[in-house]
Amino acid sequence: MNPTEQTAESRELMLTRLIDAPPEKLYKAWTEPALLKQWFCPKPWTVASAELDVRAGGTSNIVMRGPDGEEFPNQGIYLEVVPNERLVFTDAYTSAWEPSAKPFMTGIITFTPEAGKTRYTARVLHWSAADRKTHEEMGFHEGWGKATDQLAELVASL
Amino acid sequence: MNPTEQTAESRELMLTRLIDAPPEKLYKAWTEPALLKQWFCPKPWTVASAELDVRAGGTSNIVMRGPDGEEFPNQGIYLEVVPNERLVFTDAYTSAWEPSAKPFMTGIITFTPEAGKTRYTARVLHWSAADRKTHEEMGFHEGWGKATDQLAELVASL
Repeated sequence: MNPTEQTAESRELMLTRLIDAPPEKLYKAWTEPALLKQWFCPKPWTVASAELDVRAGGTSNIVMRGPDGEEFPNQGIYLEVVPNERLVFTDAYTSAWEPSAKPFMTGIITFTPEAGKTRYTARVLHWSAADRKTHEEMGFHEGWGKATDQLAELVASL
Repeated sequence: MNPTEQTAESRELMLTRLIDAPPEKLYKAWTEPALLKQWFCPKPWTVASAELDVRAGGTSNIVMRGPDGEEFPNQGIYLEVVPNERLVFTDAYTSAWEPSAKPFMTGIITFTPEAGKTRYTARVLHWSAADRKTHEEMGFHEGWGKATDQLAELVASL
């Protein structure tokens, strides 16, 4: 491993899973608000609202609601959209191209056919190793893991 | 002015000029390496090399050379490319979608027909007011001003 790879790795969090559904259904669950609201937050958290302008430069605004009713808005933009294959988004901008208060992460979601199922991979890149660590300590693996369980369950029913 | 506008403004630097050339020539001078090298650095600085993959997600790598031979690489990516109209780029990524060491600026260059000439506008957005101030103190107005003189001179000869 060269130093570049090492640096890149230390700023990245990753989740990958083989899901028994076609890429199209997973992409749909990521891009249609009515579907995304059903799986995106690990219960007992819920999605209070989701507005998704799914195109490069489009804004996504997802409000997460905690069990006590507290709301957390998450605004970002899509950087790259390849239907049924790939979604890239970041919180570095709140709209095209308004810098956010704090560039924290870039998400790269890929949907790749594998053995009649879909290799689902979420890579989350941070601008610093400190931010990656913070995200990990916020419960990245458990939170994204539970949300992915909910996603797999939802697409099985579509 | 509401607080949002105020915040946005304080993170921005801007240069605008009416240039006596069509948008096509200005766009060409921004996107063809052989032309960009002739105007991009205020003399006595020069452009040692320029590699421009002009498409959304494409990398630009411009090496600036100082009067004593010292070289400064500037790597970034294009976020939005509308030929002859608009270029958006940032140093927040070194390639699609590798976060850079420090997200500093986003440039929005527009080429708009006006009175038979072109309204040329460069907006430079920063993630913080402190970074905007740093950029201003690095000589933004003089540097971009001189480079724009060189750009106007070049396109007059095309």
